[in-house]
Amino acid sequence: EKKRLRWTNLRDMHELYCAGHLFQAAIAYHRSTGEKELLTTAVRFADHIASVFGPGKRRGTPGHPEIEMALVELYRETRKEEYLELAQFFLDQRGYGLIGGSIVLIDHKPFRQLDEIVGHAVRAIYLCCGATDIFMETGERELYETLEKLWKNMVYKRMYVTGGVGSRHAGEAFGDDYELPNRRAYSETCASVANVMWNWRMLLATGESRFTDIMELALYNAALAGISLNGREYFYVNPLADRGRHRRQRWFGCACCPPNIARLLASVPGMIYSTSDNAIWVHLYVASVARIELKGNEVRITQETEYPWDGRIDVTVEPSKDDEFSLYLRIPGWCRAATVNVNGRKVRKSVKPSTYLEISRVWGTGDRVEIELDMPVTLLKSHPYVLNNNYRVAIKRGPVVYCLEQADNPEYDVWNIAIVPETKFTATYEPELLGGVVVIEGNGIGLDISAWNNKLYAEMDEVQVKAIPVKFKAVPYYAWANRSPGPMIVWIQALGFNTLQGGKKLYKA
Amino acid sequence: EKKRLRWTNLRDMHELYCAGHLFQAAIAYHRSTGEKELLTTAVRFADHIASVFGPGKRRGTPGHPEIEMALVELYRETRKEEYLELAQFFLDQRGYGLIGGSIVLIDHKPFRQLDEIVGHAVRAIYLCCGATDIFMETGERELYETLEKLWKNMVYKRMYVTGGVGSRHAGEAFGDDYELPNRRAYSETCASVANVMWNWRMLLATGESRFTDIMELALYNAALAGISLNGREYFYVNPLADRGRHRRQRWFGCACCPPNIARLLASVPGMIYSTSDNAIWVHLYVASVARIELKGNEVRITQETEYPWDGRIDVTVEPSKDDEFSLYLRIPGWCRAATVNVNGRKVRKSVKPSTYLEISRVWGTGDRVEIELDMPVTLLKSHPYVLNNNYRVAIKRGPVVYCLEQADNPEYDVWNIAIVPETKFTATYEPELLGGVVVIEGNGIGLDISAWNNKLYAEMDEVQVKAIPVKFKAVPYYAWANRSPGPMIVWIQALGFNTLQGGKKLYKA
Repeated sequence: EKKRLRWTNLRDMHELYCAGHLFQAAIAYHRSTGEKELLTTAVRFADHIASVFGPGKRRGTPGHPEIEMALVELYRETRKEEYLELAQFFLDQRGYGLIGGSIVLIDHKPFRQLDEIVGHAVRAIYLCCGATDIFMETGERELYETLEKLWKNMVYKRMYVTGGVGSRHAGEAFGDDYELPNRRAYSETCASVANVMWNWRMLLATGESRFTDIMELALYNAALAGISLNGREYFYVNPLADRGRHRRQRWFGCACCPPNIARLLASVPGMIYSTSDNAIWVHLYVASVARIELKGNEVRITQETEYPWDGRIDVTVEPSKDDEFSLYLRIPGWCRAATVNVNGRKVRKSVKPSTYLEISRVWGTGDRVEIELDMPVTLLKSHPYVLNNNYRVAIKRGPVVYCLEQADNPEYDVWNIAIVPETKFTATYEPELLGGVVVIEGNGIGLDISAWNNKLYAEMDEVQVKAIPVKFKAVPYYAWANRSPGPMIVWIQALGFNTLQGGKKLYKA
Repeated sequence: EKKRLRWTNLRDMHELYCAGHLFQAAIAYHRSTGEKELLTTAVRFADHIASVFGPGKRRGTPGHPEIEMALVELYRETRKEEYLELAQFFLDQRGYGLIGGSIVLIDHKPFRQLDEIVGHAVRAIYLCCGATDIFMETGERELYETLEKLWKNMVYKRMYVTGGVGSRHAGEAFGDDYELPNRRAYSETCASVANVMWNWRMLLATGESRFTDIMELALYNAALAGISLNGREYFYVNPLADRGRHRRQRWFGCACCPPNIARLLASVPGMIYSTSDNAIWVHLYVASVARIELKGNEVRITQETEYPWDGRIDVTVEPSKDDEFSLYLRIPGWCRAATVNVNGRKVRKSVKPSTYLEISRVWGTGDRVEIELDMPVTLLKSHPYVLNNNYRVAIKRGPVVYCLEQADNPEYDVWNIAIVPETKFTATYEPELLGGVVVIEGNGIGLDISAWNNKLYAEMDEVQVKAIPVKFKAVPYYAWANRSPGPMIVWIQALGFNTLQGGKKLYKA
């Protein structure tokens, strides 16, 4: 009889966490099928939890946040205020040492006093998801200000170029500002899923495109890398550089990541569009057909596109009856130049990166929007305090981050390939490769490091590296480790770039 | 009554580990004072352990190695063979899953099958210490070959430039080859102490100077950083780059490091010299007076030197009676040019780095050896696979590794200081600074990174860094974090060095 152990160890036992997942499953099942049985169970369970915890009842907060967002969703489903209040209660109980007071559990400070995103990455972001859900229902300004502060700290200082977060193995936790090791990146798949979930909520709460940018980034890169192309093997940990030892596994002792990535992929269709009072928002560009309810009008929207391999998207709008409403088209943050035509005529608004372009008109069947997002190969560099990325660049095209993998570059260890200012890039769709991807090829330098032999450290004149021209080929990061094991690298050496103002006067190369 | 728990959890309970420390303390106390009481206790305890464990008795091996080297020392002290056999037994029981079979406990493979140094760094190296002690008594070749393999893997691929080892926080463990992050270095103080201990044993086993080089390196840098200049605060973890958050503590919940560094410093006098049949070996240069027994002759040796701040060492040899024997003088691996005079006459042997120079003669009172070790400021670079050290250099002079600390460089964040090929270095002894140290000053470039502002990633043309000439001042790494908190860095940016053969033809700077 383990009943006496119930609710006795909120820190380590995932009772509230599991309850939250059950609620979400019940809601999803009800919405998909109309069946009420599981939802009834969830409500009964939630009522039980509400009878145990709350103001004047038992204090407590979950070691692993999750139930907060589930309770808000259950409130939305049932309109029972006590679920929203219980979500708030669990959020507000944090930071008083009820579960030990540790930073890793984000129990060291009350939520609204946090000024940096810390602790176990999945817990931290799930907590932010719940807090964002609460904000959407309560409109509490202080809560939003904390969320904004944490988001900025994460996105400006603690996030991989892939959208992955939580750089530390120890505690599966966020690191300090700019602490983003590549080879020892933790970047848990679940944390990337959580990053998508949180940014989706922040987007819904604000309508701001910067959140969609991060949502898309994490979706196409850090999260998607979590699953193999055949859909049967998973990464828990997602390094950005490897020697070939790190491979996806069929399952894990703590198997959070496999169902989480499955759930995420199944929920992507729900993140393509959203609606506001008199508008339809297009967040993601995905070849798809959708039927959207807007003021009693069923609007059928078809996207024809090769996105993310190509920046051209043709959108056909077919309302069941002609009506005036706005279409908000996302112009991604990575896109420096975009043109939008409606029925062949160019939209005369300025089109800026990381905005939503509003097109307000009477829409009728067969109206056609043509979006052309300029999608060149770009090189990214990092803030200088990301010490391990100094003199390195990442290749990105559209939302997709690339890597060099040994399988495509048999002649040189990809850790020894460098990009130079003269490097010319070509982007080519290869339908047979890795399920169909655009590869990026270029000419660079291969470094022959054999003189290093068994030395680990050497004086400057002691070892010389030879440079030889090479061609290289990069593939999307998400598709790595699907072929024979070998070295991989995202942040590629960059030689001879002069990024210093005044530098030329100060030193010779 | 906890007696029933005795020896039931060898993996986690440090019973054998504590026993080993007791034996070593008892031996040291006996050797220092002649008192037998503690030694008698140790022998009784060892006899008890030998009555429980061994061939035909209980199987088992300690979760944390230590007792192996203690048992060999107890064998040396008492000449009771069973202690040596028990040390071998514990070593040989490893790798069969008796304590769970994990890599972190080095229980995944029998010791002689190891081909890389893995697992918890202190455990791994203590185990190697014990194995080296066993080898010294048994001469077992296979054991030595394993030790040699593990040493090479550690020194050529898994050791910081400071001599620190065990790069991972998770498991306090060795990382993969070339996995040596700076900011998230673990480099536990105890692991550096262990590194000194192991290399001391390898030196005694072989007489090879490469072991003394690593012993000296770890002693003056990684280990010594573990204790504050006032001797009252300690580092458990020793990063090679920091933003100013990492500070020494007065004590730790798991307080292994403070007594370990204290023990190490107290044992340094015993590592300056050793003897072989008809020779005295000088391993460390330290201003000191020693009396050494050699074939019934008491040889008094005085070293006058400012080492490690200066490469001049005057050695006076005063045997109680004139006699012929060899003096082996260590020529450090870091020293490219050395001269040795005996009574004013230059020794006509070639003097090579990382060797022992044998001077064989009849020594009489007042014989004087003058050693002049060339000790310029050197810049070290790393194997290219230490990705985070690419385009970075470390400053070293003699055995001492330097760092830039904010306290000495108020104008520029030291993370933004770069060394250029034109940088000229001066080395100056400052008696009032940090207890008296040689500082290294030079002219470099200060990078104004303010344009980065809140960006974490940017396209190449999006952000420009301004370069301004600056002077910088470096201090010994071991002395860092003894003043006001601020950024620190060992691996300093190096701009404009052309270390590529053929590179100039292939790219412009």
